[in-house]
Amino acid sequence: ESYDASVSRDTYLRQREALLQADENMRIGNKIVLDENERRANTILMHYKTLEINKSRASDTPFPPSIHFFQAKPLIEKSKVFQIIKKMPKGGALHLHDTSITDVNWLVKNVTYRENCYMCINKDGFIYFHFWSTPPQNPDCPWRLVKTERANSGNVDLFDQRIYNNLTIVLDDPVSAYPSINVVWKRFLQTFDQAGGLIYYAPVFRDYFYEALQEFCDDNVQYLEFRGLLPTTYELNGQEHDQTWALKVYDTIFKQFTSTNKQKFSGGKFIYSSLRIYKEKDILGEVIKSLKFIKQFPDTFAGYDLVGQEDPGIPLLDYLDALLYPSQQSQPLSLPYFFHAGETDWEGTPTDRNLVDAVLLNTSRIGHGYAIVKHPAVLQMAKTKNIAIEVNPISNQVLKLVDDLRNHPAAALIAENYPVVISADDPALWGARGLSYDFYMAFMGLSGENSDLRLLKQLAINSIMYSAMTANEKAQAMDLWKLNWSHFIQQILQE
Amino acid sequence: ESYDASVSRDTYLRQREALLQADENMRIGNKIVLDENERRANTILMHYKTLEINKSRASDTPFPPSIHFFQAKPLIEKSKVFQIIKKMPKGGALHLHDTSITDVNWLVKNVTYRENCYMCINKDGFIYFHFWSTPPQNPDCPWRLVKTERANSGNVDLFDQRIYNNLTIVLDDPVSAYPSINVVWKRFLQTFDQAGGLIYYAPVFRDYFYEALQEFCDDNVQYLEFRGLLPTTYELNGQEHDQTWALKVYDTIFKQFTSTNKQKFSGGKFIYSSLRIYKEKDILGEVIKSLKFIKQFPDTFAGYDLVGQEDPGIPLLDYLDALLYPSQQSQPLSLPYFFHAGETDWEGTPTDRNLVDAVLLNTSRIGHGYAIVKHPAVLQMAKTKNIAIEVNPISNQVLKLVDDLRNHPAAALIAENYPVVISADDPALWGARGLSYDFYMAFMGLSGENSDLRLLKQLAINSIMYSAMTANEKAQAMDLWKLNWSHFIQQILQE
Ligand SMILES: [Zn+2]
Ligand SMILES: [Zn+2]
Repeated sequence: ESYDASVSRDTYLRQREALLQADENMRIGNKIVLDENERRANTILMHYKTLEINKSRASDTPFPPSIHFFQAKPLIEKSKVFQIIKKMPKGGALHLHDTSITDVNWLVKNVTYRENCYMCINKDGFIYFHFWSTPPQNPDCPWRLVKTERANSGNVDLFDQRIYNNLTIVLDDPVSAYPSINVVWKRFLQTFDQAGGLIYYAPVFRDYFYEALQEFCDDNVQYLEFRGLLPTTYELNGQEHDQTWALKVYDTIFKQFTSTNKQKFSGGKFIYSSLRIYKEKDILGEVIKSLKFIKQFPDTFAGYDLVGQEDPGIPLLDYLDALLYPSQQSQPLSLPYFFHAGETDWEGTPTDRNLVDAVLLNTSRIGHGYAIVKHPAVLQMAKTKNIAIEVNPISNQVLKLVDDLRNHPAAALIAENYPVVISADDPALWGARGLSYDFYMAFMGLSGENSDLRLLKQLAINSIMYSAMTANEKAQAMDLWKLNWSHFIQQILQE
Repeated sequence: ESYDASVSRDTYLRQREALLQADENMRIGNKIVLDENERRANTILMHYKTLEINKSRASDTPFPPSIHFFQAKPLIEKSKVFQIIKKMPKGGALHLHDTSITDVNWLVKNVTYRENCYMCINKDGFIYFHFWSTPPQNPDCPWRLVKTERANSGNVDLFDQRIYNNLTIVLDDPVSAYPSINVVWKRFLQTFDQAGGLIYYAPVFRDYFYEALQEFCDDNVQYLEFRGLLPTTYELNGQEHDQTWALKVYDTIFKQFTSTNKQKFSGGKFIYSSLRIYKEKDILGEVIKSLKFIKQFPDTFAGYDLVGQEDPGIPLLDYLDALLYPSQQSQPLSLPYFFHAGETDWEGTPTDRNLVDAVLLNTSRIGHGYAIVKHPAVLQMAKTKNIAIEVNPISNQVLKLVDDLRNHPAAALIAENYPVVISADDPALWGARGLSYDFYMAFMGLSGENSDLRLLKQLAINSIMYSAMTANEKAQAMDLWKLNWSHFIQQILQE
């Protein structure tokens, strides 16, 4: 029954302040105490945040996180908050994929302009690429030198734009072009196929990865952990390189890039992943291979994951024996897992039950974990195991899990200080770069109007603390981050 | 760090079952033990549920809760699950509004066909109605006898359809017609204005309310609590009735309808509500009026609320003195509150902070509470105060808080057994009737594929337990409900 505890206005307002404060204190970042400079920078940041939010609230000016990223992107790029976030040292990007990291414009304007680059267009209008000294006959899809095709096209920009459109899912009217999740995922997977011929060419494979580190470094991201299939790569003469070769490339370039960018970059690690369409015995092979890789590349090989559209895919449970294999050895072997799990709107299905297996198999982090708020007991166990959730806001919107990002379940996780890291998943495929767009969505859409610099600071710190780095590596990464963070604060105050 | 506790397959599967069970046990309804007949009925229900969900999962057949209600409605009406839910005794509808309860087809086909019913169409195309013996001059919007207009229209169905379209927000392409929340709310409020002339005609006022009880009773809803403004009503001769007259009508018809439908109806109560555009001193007057009404109609007058679009509206905090008035009397007076609060996608704004004041002002229930999952401390206090949340799924979708109802925050509340009641808000304005459509959305979209009869049963019980009925009234209502519930179970088993 409702009782009317007679309360004076002042008492009421004190109770109200206490409850508001209790609520605030539960948020990510609200344990942080800002120093004097940080507070002044925070005031500048919040001035712009409040301005931009109130402009949307007061009028029908679209609020970027609530509309499709393809329409929101130009608005975000005019945002002062976005400008600040771009300058901010954001720590590490912990959820990325090997062939969707580097800006597709680089693939078009750099790689397809290289010598020996051939293309073919099949009857469905898909464009495939391959580097040949002399191309083989290919009746269904005859190879043509890109340089000649481009010259004969009569309009270089249009020609290049068409390639860009094929290698991304970007288009003007996503709502009608992608009426369902299955339609957008089909289109999404087609972009990987079409870009493969370019990226798997050994010289490009190296440059593509170096370019990725450069782009993230330019976006003030100091560390990367990315999933990859370790594809077979090829040379012009047809010679092929195996998976170890690919892993060696990552290992070498991580170290090379880090040493040449000591002031801004801490390195990165690789998570080997297989498509969740393989049979169980194949997955056992992949796990055993991972155990070999982890010994060979201890600094760079972080662990194992399964990728690919989760709803139609084979659930983790069906791979149980393979996934239990490392821990069941007489001398248990350690193979960290980083499982994509619960990337679905469904509930009570094998897809969201992947969350149960990810947590029980001691995953280090959960990829997406979109459905976890519908599984309170799983969420509770994940919290006690200190398992961070990799939230990729734009990916979840573009791949049609949610339309208005203010409805993203991670808003509730952020409100109760659940360990969250913000990442970008496949930024290149929807025209994003680095982490700034996703940090913008998290700061403006996944948390409140009054969430401030402390949230951004804690998200950056989380990305280092919940990385697969060793304690020593983390300490060094934090030192670098702190240095860059104070430069960032100075920079905001000077402008 | 991730540790590899070496675990055998069997141990793992036991742990897995335990975690799944722990998760299941937290859901609304999972404390219920079904008897033999209920279990057999549950099997039938779940056969259809699984069939319908898997059909959507396996193919691109749209899943009704994930598409707009205007497109989903015909699909829902073909659903076997919906047929069962319609037959189910659903307890009470605890969130409705006075002039959006009765099917608008009844207004069109019954009321506008009555004698002395006049209409006028203003320059913006809005249609207003009024009953006159002889209509006054009205240059901007000249009154014409509906009967004549209909006859002269040459197409009665088209004529009536046009009226229906004006008195509801139903149309074919809601996505382009309603690009923003403000646009759909503007259209939504216009329907109330246009229907007012019909409903406030005293004889219609009575029949409209009686028809509402009949519609909900036919939908196997045994009890109603609805918000209303107690409008001034008029007679043909221009004589007007005051608010007390209107309240008397509700009181009388509730009792009359209950006595003539003893086997199916338990009665109902009224929540007086004011528009959140009034000034503070006006609201004090409304509170004082409510205190008078509660003495005059103790069985029927349940309490007070503020309504109207919450984002642009005046927040509860600005009405604090008026709302504290009852409890601050030397001899504290009891005026239960039933505040709409948090009906927004925004966070950290006055709108979602209405949740703080609703809880601190000891609201009996929270209307919508859409943003409460972003305020964990407020949610916690509301739970300890046993404050139920009135969830109106279709309203939140049609009024553009969420597109895919699987993303509705109440899914997380249902998953952790937060006290929730399901209601319909303004069903008539979007072509729904009774509670069945909203129960369907809750059962199929706001909970998992494996949520079964126990969820539906608990939601019905919640609607009686969290009503404003006295303990005695609740006991009687539960007895009636149990009787009808066992008939329902028999009915399912016989078919
Ligand atoms: Zn991913
Ligand atoms: Zn309402």
